Formats: sequence, C-alpha cells, structure tokens
Amino acid sequence: MTYHRHQLEDTIVALATPPGIGAIGVVRLSGPEAISIVASVFTGKNLLDQPSHTVHFGGIALPDGRLLDEVLATLFVAPRSYTGENVVEVSCHGSPYIIQQLIQLFMEQGARLAQPGEFTLRAFLRGKLDLSQAEAVADLIAAGSEAAHDIAMQQMRGGFSHDLRQLRQRLIDFASLIELELDFGEEDVEFANRAELRQLVMGIQQVIAGLMQSFDLGNAIKEGVATVIAGRPNAGKSTLLNALLNEERAIVSDIAGTTRDIIEETLNIRGVPFRIIDTAGIREAQDAIEAIGVARTLEKIRQSAVLLYVFDVARTQPEEVLADLRSLAPEGVPLLVVANKMDLFPHALPEHYAAPETDTPIVTAANWAPVSARNRMNVEYLKEKLYELVIASHQPRESTVVSNARHYQALRQAHEALDAVLAGLSQGVSSDFVAMDIRRTLHHLGEITGEISTDDLLGNIFGRFCIGK
Amino acid sequence: MTYHRHQLEDTIVALATPPGIGAIGVVRLSGPEAISIVASVFTGKNLLDQPSHTVHFGGIALPDGRLLDEVLATLFVAPRSYTGENVVEVSCHGSPYIIQQLIQLFMEQGARLAQPGEFTLRAFLRGKLDLSQAEAVADLIAAGSEAAHDIAMQQMRGGFSHDLRQLRQRLIDFASLIELELDFGEEDVEFANRAELRQLVMGIQQVIAGLMQSFDLGNAIKEGVATVIAGRPNAGKSTLLNALLNEERAIVSDIAGTTRDIIEETLNIRGVPFRIIDTAGIREAQDAIEAIGVARTLEKIRQSAVLLYVFDVARTQPEEVLADLRSLAPEGVPLLVVANKMDLFPHALPEHYAAPETDTPIVTAANWAPVSARNRMNVEYLKEKLYELVIASHQPRESTVVSNARHYQALRQAHEALDAVLAGLSQGVSSDFVAMDIRRTLHHLGEITGEISTDDLLGNIFGRFCIGK
Repeated sequence: MTYHRHQLEDTIVALATPPGIGAIGVVRLSGPEAISIVASVFTGKNLLDQPSHTVHFGGIALPDGRLLDEVLATLFVAPRSYTGENVVEVSCHGSPYIIQQLIQLFMEQGARLAQPGEFTLRAFLRGKLDLSQAEAVADLIAAGSEAAHDIAMQQMRGGFSHDLRQLRQRLIDFASLIELELDFGEEDVEFANRAELRQLVMGIQQVIAGLMQSFDLGNAIKEGVATVIAGRPNAGKSTLLNALLNEERAIVSDIAGTTRDIIEETLNIRGVPFRIIDTAGIREAQDAIEAIGVARTLEKIRQSAVLLYVFDVARTQPEEVLADLRSLAPEGVPLLVVANKMDLFPHALPEHYAAPETDTPIVTAANWAPVSARNRMNVEYLKEKLYELVIASHQPRESTVVSNARHYQALRQAHEALDAVLAGLSQGVSSDFVAMDIRRTLHHLGEITGEISTDDLLGNIFGRFCIGK
Repeated sequence: MTYHRHQLEDTIVALATPPGIGAIGVVRLSGPEAISIVASVFTGKNLLDQPSHTVHFGGIALPDGRLLDEVLATLFVAPRSYTGENVVEVSCHGSPYIIQQLIQLFMEQGARLAQPGEFTLRAFLRGKLDLSQAEAVADLIAAGSEAAHDIAMQQMRGGFSHDLRQLRQRLIDFASLIELELDFGEEDVEFANRAELRQLVMGIQQVIAGLMQSFDLGNAIKEGVATVIAGRPNAGKSTLLNALLNEERAIVSDIAGTTRDIIEETLNIRGVPFRIIDTAGIREAQDAIEAIGVARTLEKIRQSAVLLYVFDVARTQPEEVLADLRSLAPEGVPLLVVANKMDLFPHALPEHYAAPETDTPIVTAANWAPVSARNRMNVEYLKEKLYELVIASHQPRESTVVSNARHYQALRQAHEALDAVLAGLSQGVSSDFVAMDIRRTLHHLGEITGEISTDDLLGNIFGRFCIGK
C-alpha cells in the first residue's frame, strides 16, 4: 500500500473502537470537513459554532428524516487534536448496524473511509508525532505485558528519538562544515575539526551500540522470551509448569480479548512474558541422547532465549544429567538446571554435577535451582533466577530499549556508515567521501524518526495498523 | 441476579466499548465519586474544577509513578449524563492490557466493577429513562436490520409508553373515585360515572388490542420473518435463493461482528429481515405427497410466517401443484406461489391452477408470482410481493409496534383484567371488586413502563445487557 501525501486534503472516517457489539462505539472523522460533515446530519446544536474539546448530545438524522441514533459528538478543532486536523468523535450505541449506517452516512456527506493507520499517519505528517513515536502507538495497542507496554510507552513519549535527534543535529553541523570545505575546491582549508569529528562519531557509535545491544531484550519482551523446557519423562516437568503458571493464568485471562493459542504456556515474571515451549521429543524419549527427536529439539533450543532443564534429583544420576546437558545445551543459550523433587533428596549440590574433565563446569551454583514442584517449594526463587538469567543480566530496565526491527536495522546501517567515516578520517581520504559517509549516517538515523521517509516506507509502517488508528 | 437500589451509592466502572484490540477503548465510570476517582490518577488539569461536557487530555499515573497511558477524559456532571449521575468516559489506547490495568486502577481508587446493564439500570432508577425505553437500548444495540432498528429507536424515544401512561393516569383517577365510594360503606354513593368508565375501559382495550396485534409483526422483525421455501427437486429453488440473496449478501457482510450461522439465508427486504428456511424433506422427496419427511416439513411451515412454494411452470402440471399445496399449505400461513421458469412457459395464469371443486381457490392472482430465477426476471417483484404479504398487509410501518415479549405478556394481562372490569360493571358487582380489577390493570400497565417494578424483574431485564451498558 502506498500513501500519498496529497490525500491529506480528504476528510477520513473509520470505526475507532473494536468491531462487535458493545455499549458504545466510536466513529472518528479527521480532516478539513470533519466538523461540517457531522454538523450536516446532527440534530443538536450547530457544531460549527462550538469550541474545541466540548461534547454535544444530539440525534443523527438520515436523509429520509428518520433518526439513526442519539449520539455524543466530541469536537477537536485543529490543531488541538490527535491528527492535528479537525477531528470529531461520534459516540453512538454499540450496534454494528448503527455503526455501518453511520459510516455510510458520513461517506455520503463527503468523507472517505480511512486506510489502516491513516489517522496516525496524519499525526506524523502534520508533525504531531515522529515516526518512531507513531510506530510505538501500534506497539502500545498490541502490548500484552507490562514490560512490552513500558517500552512502547517510553518510545511513544519520545524515547531515544530525542537523543538521536540531538546527535544527528551535531553530525549535520559537521557535514555542513565539511561540505563547505568542498566549495573551496583545491584550497585545502579545514573548517571541520577532524579530532572533534572523530570524537563525536565514536560517541554516537557508543550510543548506537548500546541501543543495538538492547534490541535482543526489547524484541524478547515484545514477542515473549522463548523458553524451552526440557527433561526426561517423570522429571516433574508438567507439575513444574503448573506450579509456574498457577497464579499467572488467572491474571492473563482477566484481559478480555487477548486469547492466544499459546496463552496456557505464557508465564509472566515481573511483567516480562516468557513463552514456555514444550519439547515433545525429550518428553517422549526414554533416553534423550539416543532419541530420534533430539536434532529437532536442539534446533528449538538454539532458537530460544533460555533452556530450562528439569530432572528428578532423587532418581537421575549426575552422569545422566551431564549426558543430557552435553547433548542438549548449546553454547550461547543460557541454561537453568532445575533439580526437582529436592524435598526427597535435599542434599544434592551443584558441585556433585560438575564434569571433572572440564575447566568450566556445566552445572554451577549460578544456574542451579533446587525446587519441589509438587510442594511449590522454591518456585518463586526459580522465577527470580529465570528473570535474572535472561533480563536483569542483560540491561537495566530503566534505560532505553529498542524493540523495533526496523530501528535495529537502521541503527546497524548507521553504525556501519560511521565505521566508514572513521576509516576515511584515519586514511585521510578526501573530504567529499567523508561527507558522503556522514550523509549516509544521517540518512539512516533520520529513517528512525522519520526526517527521512518515503511513501513506500510510510505505507509499509502504517499499513500494519488497524483501520481507525 | 438481583439488583439492590441501595447500591446506587457506589461508583461503578466498566469497559463501554467491545473487548478486543482497537484504535481506542472507552472505560466509563458513573456515581458520586466518578470524577474524583479519575482526577486522583490523572496528570492533566484538575478534573474537579472542569465544567460538564468537556474533554481533557492527560496521562494516567500508576501508583509507582509510571505512566499507564495518555488518555482523553470526558466529564458529564450530574444530572447531565446518561445515568443522571457524575459520569467520566476515559478514552485510552485500545489495548486489552491498558484497559485491564485502567479498570484495576479505578477499582483500587474505590470504584466497583459494574454489573451487566447497571449503567442503564441507574438511568432508569434516576428517572432518565422509563423501563420500556431502557429495554429498547438493549434492542437497539442488538438490532441487525433497519426495521428492527427503527422499532427499537421508536421505543427508546418514548414510543407507546407515553400513550400508555396517559391512559393509565385516567384509570388511576377512576380507581380513586371508586375507592372513595368504598369509604362511604353502605351509603350507596357513586362518584365514578359507570358509563364513562365503561367507555374508557373499552377505549383502552382497543389501544391494547392494537398493540398486541402488532406484536407478531414486531417479533418477526426483531427475530427475522420465518420464511419456509419449498418445492420439488429441480423447481429452481436454489437458483431462486441465489437470485434473492445476490445483492443482499454483500450488504450483510459489511456489518462487522454480526456473523450469524444463518446469515447466508437471511434476506433483507426494505429493511426487514426474512429468514429463509430450507426444507430438505421436500427438496429430496420425489413425490412430495408421499414423502416420509412431509410431516416434519409441515411442522416447520406451521411455525413459519410465510410459505414460498416454488415450482417449474414448464414441467409441473396444475394438478401436481394443487396436490403439493393441499398437503403443504396449512390454513393461516400466508402462501406465495412462485411459478418459476416463466420465460419458458409465459402463458401460465393463476386461474389455470384454480381447484374447480372449491369456492376459495388456493392459487389466486394475489399470491401468484411468475419469475425466471435464472434470468433474474421478476425477482424484485417477488420480493415486493413477499414484503406486502407479510408486512404491509399487517400494519402500517409508521405506527407503534410492540416487539418485546414481556410487554406483550403485560398487555395481555391488562386486557384480561379490563375484561373483568367490564364484566363486573355489567353484572353490577360491588365496587371493591371493580376497584380490584382496575388496580390489577394498572399493575400490568405499570410493569411495562416501570412504574411497577421489583428488584427481581429489574435483575431479569438488566442482567441480559452487556457489561458496560
């Protein structure tokens, strides 16, 4: 879908609330004619004479004089609105029939059905939001956990785009100076202090690197932390799963309309969603090492953010545990070793499971979590361990987190362009090449906040929104 | 569910828009503390100082200081609101997570989750709506067709309850006079003019009878007119069905969220829904008279509002048509005889199908509809015929229509009580019996508009509403 800026002259209309039957539904109009279109079918006060941010009760009259509904019309006069345009929100009875008729009526009066995300697109084009803020609106609506919500809210409130804009401005200043040098041709003047520029570039790279590093975390929080739980049959995996999910399940199901296929295996720890992924291969296999499904299970573990290995501490021997872990636990995936049924065998310690032949033991005090799933012993401790292993070690919660793959991509490209700037400075290449690499950096940084945008990019971003936002 | 009026002191909160993800969601509060509860977590202007019918932008702060969302808060100061109480509508981003957190936050601040229909119950208890108007709100939201919508809208705007109240008041005056007579004991005085009373009672009965008569129609419009379509195999029934549904299907599917199991066979004629009911028995049977399913089909036809009999005018002989109709068309169910494939046999006339032995022919010019379903000939004419047969003949659209079974029941009981009044007057029974029957009438009429109501009745009515209305 491509968005054309000249379509800004239209007045758009859409249902802003979820479809379906409810107490009320809200139909929203935005554009130069928003108020006059509603006023033309409104039986209450003359809406054209009313101030911004006021609400008016009245009927909606059909062309044949019949009353469609009694509604509340809320006025937002440009530029004091979400889109920066004239906006009217018509709150009607939440009947799909009425809503359909109402939208049709407004279209007959000259409004056009809004495209997905077009209200927010207009807010962006009219300077009410930058692009990363606009994207955060969609993330905010889709956020299903506290952590994902917090990241989206922070981004919508400005987030890192404010910092980026400042850094970008300083780069722009340098670029101007360097381009000024080019005007002097062969005269070999140097307006831009190369040492300062190098320092600025490295500073920006540091910021970018931090933001890029936060992406893994941000993405995990947005999508849920992929957590593979594995163990031999009768290790107590199901009991542990129930113990972990017990209180969470009710909280999740309180949220109307968020039913997802995997909801029963989503665990919320301190607001961060962990997606617990079952590995049937290991569950069924009598001997994990020889089981036919191990390869597939390994693949799942490799793509996951953390492995939760559960074993029956009273019945599984240390060498069996080590054998399982050697075959299952790949490098780079954090591992938590859950010694279950510790009430039956309380004396087991991580050092009993150290592999004598290696310097770096697989099982350590740091990744050792003794629990009794059946008795709910240490389950909260296990959750804390899990949270720390994945989140706390990663990055403090307060700081800025990147959760958008498009932003990550732009940051990566900006970082590469800055590498080229640094290389150019070291090798003393001519100013026009340095200026070009700086411009390339500016381009990629500008893509994030929308200083640089194309209709295709906008279509790509806003096309993913729902209609009415 | 029983509603207790003393709970009116609480401030209630609920999601007013349909659950699910949308651009915006609206959380509504009503009650004495509605404004102060929202003000206590709102980061914008002090809402307690703002006038009614104004909208304010601001943040919602969680107890730990984090920002939950940026919202619009709309104030309605008592009594200028839907419920007659202080009402605040908080329009937030349409995220289930935010909505759940927001409702939880308001509950922590002292609001209570609203019961189904409790906002409208309060509007009733505070005199903003009478009971039949309140019921119409639920009908209005559920109305899926123009006609059902119009009936609900008329009822919500006052409808027949205004007339009923006037008639009821005149009866109350008579009841008072008669009861005054009782105070005089054996003195045989007569304050109430018996002739006038008799006239009034008969006048009221006439109004009630008219309303009761409209119930069949009202109910049909609300639920859809049950239309059985029957015919021999290859009569062209499916082609006719497609021809009838063709344009309508798109219109119906435009209405988001109204998907019903039978949607493919719902036909909308001039805003009235006709539920087309298939009769497999006749469709499969080679000879309708002898078919084993005829009894069951007959049962369906008897329960229906209209029978659409389709036959192939080029291949089915008049005596076969008459045989089918004699076995299928019961007394009292309107019949439409659709002579299909009339393009192949344009000379067929209803009189060719008259049964010579009876005075009242089954097939007449009035119920005869020659069409060619394949060529879409006369399909619009058939629709008009169908509409006239069921609706237009019944009652003019403009007048008041009763669509609520509870109202019908109350009207019937009032009518019976008035019969008893008339009988009492004729038989010259003592005034206290007449007074009792008048009181009984008043009770039943009062049940409709809610002058007479019990907590159980209210619970019964409002318990069927959705939460948030």
